[in-house]
Amino acid sequence: MADIDRYVSQLAQLAVRQGANVQPGQIVSLAGEPGKEALWRAIGEAAYAAGARFVDLSVFDVHLKRARALHADRDTLPYVPPWIGERVLALGDQRAARISLSGPVAPHLLDDVDPELLSLDRLPRVPESMRVVNDQTTNWTIVPCPTPAWATLVHPRLEPPAALELLWEQIAHVCRLDEPDPVAAWDARLTELVRVSCALTDLRLDSVRFHGPGTDLTIGLLPSSRWIAARFATVDGIVHQPNVPTEEVFTTPDPERVDGEVRSTKPLFTSGTAVTGLRVRFERGRAVQVDADQGAEVVRGLVATDDGAARLGEVALVDREGRIGPLETVFFDTLLDENAASHIALGGGYHLGVGDPADVERINESAIHTDFMIGGDEVSVDGVRTGGETVALLRGGRWQI
Amino acid sequence: MADIDRYVSQLAQLAVRQGANVQPGQIVSLAGEPGKEALWRAIGEAAYAAGARFVDLSVFDVHLKRARALHADRDTLPYVPPWIGERVLALGDQRAARISLSGPVAPHLLDDVDPELLSLDRLPRVPESMRVVNDQTTNWTIVPCPTPAWATLVHPRLEPPAALELLWEQIAHVCRLDEPDPVAAWDARLTELVRVSCALTDLRLDSVRFHGPGTDLTIGLLPSSRWIAARFATVDGIVHQPNVPTEEVFTTPDPERVDGEVRSTKPLFTSGTAVTGLRVRFERGRAVQVDADQGAEVVRGLVATDDGAARLGEVALVDREGRIGPLETVFFDTLLDENAASHIALGGGYHLGVGDPADVERINESAIHTDFMIGGDEVSVDGVRTGGETVALLRGGRWQI
Repeated sequence: MADIDRYVSQLAQLAVRQGANVQPGQIVSLAGEPGKEALWRAIGEAAYAAGARFVDLSVFDVHLKRARALHADRDTLPYVPPWIGERVLALGDQRAARISLSGPVAPHLLDDVDPELLSLDRLPRVPESMRVVNDQTTNWTIVPCPTPAWATLVHPRLEPPAALELLWEQIAHVCRLDEPDPVAAWDARLTELVRVSCALTDLRLDSVRFHGPGTDLTIGLLPSSRWIAARFATVDGIVHQPNVPTEEVFTTPDPERVDGEVRSTKPLFTSGTAVTGLRVRFERGRAVQVDADQGAEVVRGLVATDDGAARLGEVALVDREGRIGPLETVFFDTLLDENAASHIALGGGYHLGVGDPADVERINESAIHTDFMIGGDEVSVDGVRTGGETVALLRGGRWQI
Repeated sequence: MADIDRYVSQLAQLAVRQGANVQPGQIVSLAGEPGKEALWRAIGEAAYAAGARFVDLSVFDVHLKRARALHADRDTLPYVPPWIGERVLALGDQRAARISLSGPVAPHLLDDVDPELLSLDRLPRVPESMRVVNDQTTNWTIVPCPTPAWATLVHPRLEPPAALELLWEQIAHVCRLDEPDPVAAWDARLTELVRVSCALTDLRLDSVRFHGPGTDLTIGLLPSSRWIAARFATVDGIVHQPNVPTEEVFTTPDPERVDGEVRSTKPLFTSGTAVTGLRVRFERGRAVQVDADQGAEVVRGLVATDDGAARLGEVALVDREGRIGPLETVFFDTLLDENAASHIALGGGYHLGVGDPADVERINESAIHTDFMIGGDEVSVDGVRTGGETVALLRGGRWQI
């Protein structure tokens, strides 16, 4: 337990100092779930020590979501009391900091609930959150919070205490808590990711090509597609790191220009199912054929969700310095899994990934956004510039730019 | 654990059906603390089963309050983000139900914190709560929620599991969960308490006199003092029971007319100290002498808090049918302890206890409201009517009216 106690304290410091970069006098919104008390308390203490004016805890309990889906009148399920969204907007108005703790606390609790009912109740997500993110009025971060149930999900063959210890060790490693100065380590890593993202944007690429075993995929970009690393600044200039950990640089592609075949390099877990050996063929932007060693029907269902679900909303590159992929562990948590390797996402794209407002309407729209991993040391990535010149981007997992 | 699981489920049903009396379509505000998950989840489920539109959980964590007192800038301690009070007012506007869970979860956590700092941060209390109570726009209740830490506080000589089991048994008993139909049992008890409160109000008493070992105390009432039992109705006519359990009928006395001597019949715990054998002499409303077998100085400090702290804000009568007193247990929780026996409170009074707005300005005002028990089977209670006639109220703990 001594190690875990130390990790809790170190991760709290990292969330407050590097992640949200809490400023003296700020309100800090802290979003957790039952079972994450130790970390949220350590974060609260670190935030007050950093000069926070008030730490405003909000707790989401998935047990209540389950009870609602099972017992409430179906017509009431989309209802959200007005003050929940109003609070989020007020956090923006007040220029607050926001810290959220990710990681499942009760992974199988909704397994037996009709997914259609669950889709009607979208909480804890509220649309106001996206608006505050786009307004860039809050300095925010998401950090992972290991819990016993999560540890057992990730390491089912271990005894629960050993599983929890291993998950914490892995989280500590990927969050660089094992560095002498984790904040300095993240500053160095972010500086590199920002350098790469600027270099990629400056190349003004027309498309990106992935080439490797089972993969030959070309993804067209939009004229103003720009590459983003997770070092953000608020409108007031507060630099922060929205994801801890983060390893990716990503952009928003042209949903009309994706062609070729791609094979997933890591399993995809979605809708409670494992999809392995996923193979997708794209033609003029659309996923026209989906096969897999296991679980193909789940992905076929996903791409049929709506008009945009068969097109891409994101392409992201991760180099071999990323610490998540080498662990060869599926964490069942997007914050970690999407940073394991270069990936693409079926579904909606981020406005952040284009520079010209005129391109915003060309961004793919969909109710889904499902990442799957297509990169690895054996997959080469090239960029093709507007003039036709090819530029090597990743070889053997190393940046060539 | 089987018994505890059953108690959780029964208490949840009682809170939803009898306490708050949740109506179909209502929002239900549910206020808990970490450690009370099992009861709040059972209440959430019962509320949705009763037709609630949305159960809105708010969690207060005293650990964050401690961190704030220890680390935040002192000048910021009174600050409360505007949305906390706005949400409470919105609950009134929306005609919501409100359910709170009482009982300490970390009884000694603030022992080493400067009380002056704690007094600057009044959360989880916000002034808007009192306004919503006075507006009678919400149907609300408070129910006790046993936790391991609370059980050890109440039963320190027992092993923790035995202490928790005993506390649950006691809570089940005082909440009448051991009756075949707890809701029917409470209806019968409330009907009796309401009958007594109406009879007391109809007597138009000028004063109440307590007489017993070490006690001869006369408490003057205001012209429009009225007696209240805990069966309330909202402005929309939703009948509810704000306290589960409740055993008292109470009113607001005249702070200028209290004379005589009184000896406490149960220990008083305040400011973390036990006060036993408390003896107080009143002259023209003021406590002019305070003695005790133990802890007199704490009460002397209390009555010196402000101008109204040496005067009375409440007088309450409890008969021998009350289930808390016979347990001879101090629960360290006002919801339970104040229903153990007839009692008086030093400090501020409730507006609810007077019928004429002109009398409101005569109600005692103070920052404190400290109940102590002065009743028992050996203490007689009489009323003196405006014309001078004496009426026996309680003899041997039985109502005489």
